[in-house]
Amino acid sequence: MDKWLELCRAARDDVARVLTELPGRAEREPKIGEGEGGDDTTAIDAAAEAVILERFRSEDVRIVSEEAGIEGDGRWTIVVDPIDGSLNAKRGIPFFSLSIAVADGDTMGDVAFGYVYDFGTGEEWTATRGGGALLDGRPITERPKDELEILSFEATTTAYVSENAARFDGVAYRLRVMGSLAITLCHLAAGRVDGVVSLKPARSVDIAAAQLLVREQGLAIELPDAPPLAAAPLDLEGRSRVAAAGNAELCSQLAAALTDRGGR
Amino acid sequence: MDKWLELCRAARDDVARVLTELPGRAEREPKIGEGEGGDDTTAIDAAAEAVILERFRSEDVRIVSEEAGIEGDGRWTIVVDPIDGSLNAKRGIPFFSLSIAVADGDTMGDVAFGYVYDFGTGEEWTATRGGGALLDGRPITERPKDELEILSFEATTTAYVSENAARFDGVAYRLRVMGSLAITLCHLAAGRVDGVVSLKPARSVDIAAAQLLVREQGLAIELPDAPPLAAAPLDLEGRSRVAAAGNAELCSQLAAALTDRGGR
Repeated sequence: MDKWLELCRAARDDVARVLTELPGRAEREPKIGEGEGGDDTTAIDAAAEAVILERFRSEDVRIVSEEAGIEGDGRWTIVVDPIDGSLNAKRGIPFFSLSIAVADGDTMGDVAFGYVYDFGTGEEWTATRGGGALLDGRPITERPKDELEILSFEATTTAYVSENAARFDGVAYRLRVMGSLAITLCHLAAGRVDGVVSLKPARSVDIAAAQLLVREQGLAIELPDAPPLAAAPLDLEGRSRVAAAGNAELCSQLAAALTDRGGR
Repeated sequence: MDKWLELCRAARDDVARVLTELPGRAEREPKIGEGEGGDDTTAIDAAAEAVILERFRSEDVRIVSEEAGIEGDGRWTIVVDPIDGSLNAKRGIPFFSLSIAVADGDTMGDVAFGYVYDFGTGEEWTATRGGGALLDGRPITERPKDELEILSFEATTTAYVSENAARFDGVAYRLRVMGSLAITLCHLAAGRVDGVVSLKPARSVDIAAAQLLVREQGLAIELPDAPPLAAAPLDLEGRSRVAAAGNAELCSQLAAALTDRGGR
């Protein structure tokens, strides 16, 4: 996987250069279209994706990318979110990431390598299937707690949070809403939070890399609306919300709270 | 104010050393008592406070600090939160800060210098009364939007968020719950978020430094339960929730939503 790590780091440097070239809101924020994944494409998303496609295009790959869609039909599937946490990146909140997964097939279970780079802290999160998860090249030793002291929500509209927060009252003690699903899943992998829930359906580009960190650490992650996770196609459709936690029981508890139709 | 900036930076280095000495959850998390402000005092809070008190004690000061209470009766009042965002610091989420305000009297309006250091990103936020606000020594040019694209909540229990989020549905489009009131007020000062609300009463140690950045940028901040802000005593009592935004009208709108007894 050394070759992929090297390519991911080169891609990270490419995106870092784009961030320098588009330093502020005026440069990053303009909308220039709608991505294949359905979200608005802004200047910073498009510029970051362009340099990454350029970086990987000459490899033997099929690229699944948030804005551009699917390109190529090579042996390896590369699942890219050029900027996970676009709103943070546009507004200057230093909590957004580059997420790249490398798969030897077309489902989540085929992901063999995951790479998440946090542009706020400069932390590099990597995982190799069967080979464990690393933070800045070192094994991760902390684990989530067996109770939900901190639960992290993704999908951050006020409407989603106000509709859903009460479902987790009594389930989790404190909430975080940070704005990057990939980073917060990495934080779970490192025991910085105890649970993660995406209140809206996630796409493979959002989770393909970070889910491998979570699973390599022996933690639990589910797609409650379209199980099982391992069979999820590596494409741009959002089929299911996400629940993840330190063990299967807590994860099921989160999934149940999330999908409870009797919730307030 | 150069002398205070120098002292604050020395205090920051002191706290950084403590963070290195207490690297993980096992070292940071043990509870060792209850602070004068009412929250649990944990090992990391106590160790960080000890080095800061040591740093300022020989000056002509009265120190108001989160855990230790009030000490000394010198000419300058130093208002300290050694670690704003303690839970993040304990759990390893890189979003917590040192907050120090220097006042020439005993109310919020007397704060003459504010210093907030973000240990996650290494960003240094400073403000001098009448002299403006700086990020890493440079003037801040971005401003919040005139609509609430991003509203940041502080007081992060699931119960608080579930009781309050619906009040802001239709008022703000997206939420953040990051876990450090001082940093998120600095983010408002730099236009990274558009509004800030503390759902529980804040104490002067939480806001004394950052409120000066907000006001020096010409933005609005209110204590809706105990106005006006400028008259708030620099002590350890939590008297009012907080609302802040890019202009007085938006700020009042947030304060009204916060205090609306008819809210869902």
